[in-house]
Order: sequence, then C-alpha cells, then structure tokens
Amino acid sequence: MNTFSLRIIHAIRQVVGQQQANLHEPTFSGNELKYLQECINSSFVSSAGKFVDRFESELAAYTRADYAVAVVNGTAALHVALLLAGVKPKDEVLIPSLTFVATANAIRYAGAEPHFVDCEQHTLGVDPEALRHYLSTVIEIRHGQSVNRRTGSVVRALVPVHVFGHPCDIDGLLSVARDFHLMVVEDAAESLGSYYKEKHTGTLGLIGIVSFNGNKTITTGGGGAILTSNPELAYRAKHLCTTAKVPHSWEYSHDKVGFNYRMPSLNAALGCAQLEQLPQFLESKRRLFERYRDAFKDFQAVQVMEEPVDCRSNYWLQALLLDKSAEDERDNLLEDTNNAGLMTRPIWTLLHRLAPYQDCPRAPLPVAESLELRILNLPSSAGLS
Amino acid sequence: MNTFSLRIIHAIRQVVGQQQANLHEPTFSGNELKYLQECINSSFVSSAGKFVDRFESELAAYTRADYAVAVVNGTAALHVALLLAGVKPKDEVLIPSLTFVATANAIRYAGAEPHFVDCEQHTLGVDPEALRHYLSTVIEIRHGQSVNRRTGSVVRALVPVHVFGHPCDIDGLLSVARDFHLMVVEDAAESLGSYYKEKHTGTLGLIGIVSFNGNKTITTGGGGAILTSNPELAYRAKHLCTTAKVPHSWEYSHDKVGFNYRMPSLNAALGCAQLEQLPQFLESKRRLFERYRDAFKDFQAVQVMEEPVDCRSNYWLQALLLDKSAEDERDNLLEDTNNAGLMTRPIWTLLHRLAPYQDCPRAPLPVAESLELRILNLPSSAGLS
Repeated sequence: MNTFSLRIIHAIRQVVGQQQANLHEPTFSGNELKYLQECINSSFVSSAGKFVDRFESELAAYTRADYAVAVVNGTAALHVALLLAGVKPKDEVLIPSLTFVATANAIRYAGAEPHFVDCEQHTLGVDPEALRHYLSTVIEIRHGQSVNRRTGSVVRALVPVHVFGHPCDIDGLLSVARDFHLMVVEDAAESLGSYYKEKHTGTLGLIGIVSFNGNKTITTGGGGAILTSNPELAYRAKHLCTTAKVPHSWEYSHDKVGFNYRMPSLNAALGCAQLEQLPQFLESKRRLFERYRDAFKDFQAVQVMEEPVDCRSNYWLQALLLDKSAEDERDNLLEDTNNAGLMTRPIWTLLHRLAPYQDCPRAPLPVAESLELRILNLPSSAGLS
Repeated sequence: MNTFSLRIIHAIRQVVGQQQANLHEPTFSGNELKYLQECINSSFVSSAGKFVDRFESELAAYTRADYAVAVVNGTAALHVALLLAGVKPKDEVLIPSLTFVATANAIRYAGAEPHFVDCEQHTLGVDPEALRHYLSTVIEIRHGQSVNRRTGSVVRALVPVHVFGHPCDIDGLLSVARDFHLMVVEDAAESLGSYYKEKHTGTLGLIGIVSFNGNKTITTGGGGAILTSNPELAYRAKHLCTTAKVPHSWEYSHDKVGFNYRMPSLNAALGCAQLEQLPQFLESKRRLFERYRDAFKDFQAVQVMEEPVDCRSNYWLQALLLDKSAEDERDNLLEDTNNAGLMTRPIWTLLHRLAPYQDCPRAPLPVAESLELRILNLPSSAGLS
C-alpha cells in the first residue's frame, strides 16, 4: 500500500474509528417497531390504511410542498412526474450525465430520450451557464417549443439532480428553463432535508421527487414520493399511481393506462417513524462532514465536498474530491480502502457511456468527465458520527 | 328491499354471521411481528438482506418452480415476464377481456397491444376452443410467427389468467399456443395455492407471476413474484428488476434499461410469515366455499363458483353466479348487500370497454359479456370461516 492510501485510510479512521464502516446504513432508533405493529394490528398493510395518508401529510408539512404522493420508489416517482410534466414518446429530456441510472431509465419508460448535459464542480449539479450556451447552439424555438435542430425532437423538460444531497443552482436553471420553454422536474431523490435558499429541494420546479430507498437519509424499505404544490398535478399523480381507477362505490373502471405505484402502508409506517428522526439524522450527517473536513484539512490534493453557498445540504453521501494531480490514485484508493474494511465507492459511470444510452444526444461534458475520475464516496451513515 | 335481496343477504349471513364483512382482509396470526423485528434489527430493510432470499426460496419450494424472483407487485412481475417472453413494441398479446386491468397495463408498458379473447363459464378463464377457432380466422403463420391479418402485427404471446383463483384450462391453451407459436405467460396473480392437475398455477407456461397485494391470499403489503424453471430467464428477471446493474465490487455500470422492481426486505419478512400460514388459509377458504355452497343450495337462479374438474382452487374470491333470468337483479343486490354491511363487488368492467383499450383488437366476447352482468363476489377472507 502506498503512502497516499495509508494517509487517506488514517484520516478516515480518525472519523469512523477502527470498526468496519459501510457506505450508508439506516438507523432505526425511534418508533419503527411500534408503528409496524400498529400497522399489522390494523390489518391495513397495503394501499389503504392511515399510515400512507399520515406519511404523505407529514412529508408535505416537512418539505412545505402542498402535496406529497407516496409511491413504491424514486424511479416510479420520476416516471410519473415526467408524464405529468407532459413528456411524450420521442421527446428529449435534459439530464446530467453525472447521476444515477434511474434518472435516464424513467425517461425511457415514458418513451422519451435522455439528452445529457454537463455539471459544475462546486455543486456537482447541472451547470446553468454551460447549459444556456449549449442550448443556444442546438435549439431552435418553434411554436413556443424547444426543438433539437439535429434530431428534430422536442426538448420538453429539464431534470436537475441534487447529487449526494448538495443543492444545484436551481435559480440559474429555472431561468434557462424559462427561456427555453422547458418543464422542470426536480430529482431530489438524494436530497431530502436539503434546502436551496430556505426552500426544500424538490419543491422549486413544477414537480419534484424524493427517494426512501434503503441507502437514503431516511428509508421506507423501498419508497419514494412525488412533491408538488399544484393540486391538479397532485390529483393526477395519485390517480395514475393507483391504476387510474375511477372513484365508485363498487365499479371497477379505469380511464387511463395507470400504474401500480402506490406505497404500501407497511412501508409508510416505517417512513413515519423515520421522518420523526430526520432532524437528528441531518445533524449527525453534518457533524460527520465537519469531522471529515477536519481530518482532511492538511491534505493538498484532496478536499471534502461542501454544501454550496446559500444552500443547506443533507450531506447524504460524503465525497472526497481528488485534484487532477491525484486522479491516477483513485483505483488504488478504492482497492486499499475497501480492503481495509472502509467501504468507499467511485461516482457512477457517466450515463452516456452505458450501452443503453451511448447513442443519446449530448452536450460537451468536460466537467463531468473530469469529476468521474476524481470522486470517492466515504462511509456516510448517520450512525457513524 | 325485494325478496330476492333479502334471501341472498340471509344466506350470506348464515355463513359470515351478523358482523360487517369486508371483501377480503388479510390474517396476521403467525410470525409477522417477529420477522419484521428481525428485519429491522438486521438494518437490512431494502434490497439486501436475508428475507428476500428466504422468501424467494420458500416460494420456489412451495410452488415447485425452480426459481422465484420477488418484486414490488404483480403488475411489475407481469411487465418483466412479458419482456422475457420476447414481447416487443407493436406486438399483440392475447389476454381475456375478463381480468383485472393490470394484465392489459403491463402489455402497454412493454409497448405492445392487448388483443382480447373470450372465456368459458365454468373456469372464467380463456376458452381454448373459442380461441383456436378465432385464431384460425384472423391469424396467418409467417416465418413461424402468428401475424394478425387485419393489423399486420405479430401476435407474440398468450396470457391466461386464473380468475378468482380458479385454474383455467391450461392444457387446452398450451396446445393452442403450440400450434400458433405463442409464448405463454401465466397470470397467476390471484391463484397462489391453486393447482392444475397437481401442478401449481404459474408454473405451467414459460414463465408465470403471482401477487401478494393486500387483498390476496397472502400479502407482503405490496408484492409479487416471477416464477420460472428456466435458469437463464430467472437470471435475466433478477437482473432486469435490479436496474440491470453489472456485478462488480464497486463500479456502477448497467447494461440495459432496467427497472427498480425488487421487493424490499421489509415486505419479504412479512411474506415469510404469511407463507408459513398459507396451508391453513387455504383450508379456511375452502371451508368458506363449502359453507356458501350449502347456504345457497336451495336457490334456483344462483350458484356458487366451484373449482374446475381436476383442479384445486385457492378459492381466493368467492363468487356467486346469477342465472340469466336473474341478471337484472345484480345492481339491486350490490346496493342492498353493501348497505347491509356485507361487502360484495361485481366483476371488473370488461377491459375492451375501458377508454385506454376500447380500440384494441378483439375476438367475439359473448361469454365474457354475459358473465360481466352476472357475477357477484362475496366476503372471502380466510378469517370468516
């Protein structure tokens, strides 16, 4: 093991101690068992029952979205959010290449094509200036719609992603979206508890989504939610997620191709218990960040990712950013840290490199391509701090 | 209230007593809380953890399928099963018009079109003879594929459904499928615990699916599974349901447009407890059928649906079949029984009548159209017997 690896491992151990440390584990120290028991005793473990309604209203209150619709996972939430934003087959949807694959998959479920754009280093989110410049070269506005000159397709929407919980520059992106007639669907899958200028992420565009997968800040086992302040969109979201069944005392009639996407009550019961603990999880995760920052403060070639100005991050996944001078060390570091029982991960393979997406339209991606080689996620569980 | 309603209500009350009775409620009298607690204590509530593997292997053992892949619900299971059967955009897939809407929705998710066919009264499932006759008039075999002469589309697959848990005539349907080069995807969403000639439903075609929704014989909150005895299909099912991630110690790479369809461990923990009780639930539901049959034995115009010859039904939903002479009474009966606190339901609106499916190709549907007016589901919970 080289000196660089040894020093990094030493710094991580200053924070997490001598134990094995996973990338992200949930903490269950509240009313989880109590609510699960209540749920079982009520016999309503599926789509009906009080816990789904309660989880939705508590989530809406927490995020200050007017409406939250709980669904099976963040991918399903994004799929329905895209449909509600008017994304149609053959449309293009702008997304960062630097995101989890679910963002692109959801676009394909809607029959549309991802169109990849670049990000900026200090937020890891879509770069508004680079986006504006790129769109001005490839877009022609026709009848109030953005049309990709090369493909002839309508570019319908933009999906900003708050990577690792760090809010991206939403004001900048909303301004570009306005000028290019793009619907904004905010992918806040990773950023429950993160704020952009006092507003909760996921509530700044037309519609947003969050995730409660097992590796997220709070978990429902699997789960997600659609957030919106538009009552009609909220109604349509619930309708589409519950097989588009037309309300009736007994008739089974469905007026759309709907989805079986509603969150089961069992999972919502877990979510209610987890949501109660979110403030303390967020504090723990912030403390963990501060301890990593301190542990790495004397490193020349390495910095710990910090929340952007005017933003409050949930610090979902702690990330180490290597300088370009150190990027050749990344694979060694992954190997050595994981061998030492410290679970680290690289960032996702950029989506435009994956087989199903390599032929999709894309902007120049210099920042994403550089970051791809230089990011290392560190053990990030709230329980570590 | 007329005499007919009064007599029906009296007969139902002979079986369920004076209490309110829902259509179908789950029973949680086993290890549900114990396993949920173990699941929470393990901290693995999501896609990893022992309960998913355990539920899958116990389900495979129970059904004698070689492989079971647990997913978020029956609809998701059917979507992936259709893709694995080779269903492609623009294909047609034969399904009964008399089924729950999810069967048709899953076909649309795959980009294909449902093509509705008729059923037979004694099984409520697709009628093999009517199907053969119909296909011989509309199908032309080209290059070993069935092509719909009218639409020019390939008719790729047949999805038999075991309605209310009663096995349909699978031998007859497999024979038609063989002659017309159709893949068979068995929709056993309602028939866990039902057998066709000693074989568990869902294991007789290429691939099958079951459901564990809250209203099913056993429940995982929301859930379903794909059953197959083909190891390659099982591997591909798991891969597609877990975002098509390519196995690697730390790299995030995905080789297909995958889905976030895996069942969370929390739900699988509930499933393990429920599966242990399945034999006693089945006994209770059979007793309930016998008591309904006895209570209605003196009625001229009404019969309680009974399992087909050579089959063993799980009697998921008990159904009363009205004679044609009594079909005008159905709406009154629904009104009166529900007002009396006895939850009854009509069968689903036939799918070819629903807005999203009214333009789909279809066979003549005289039996389905007659049954649609004459079926009344009765309170069916295992706990009632």
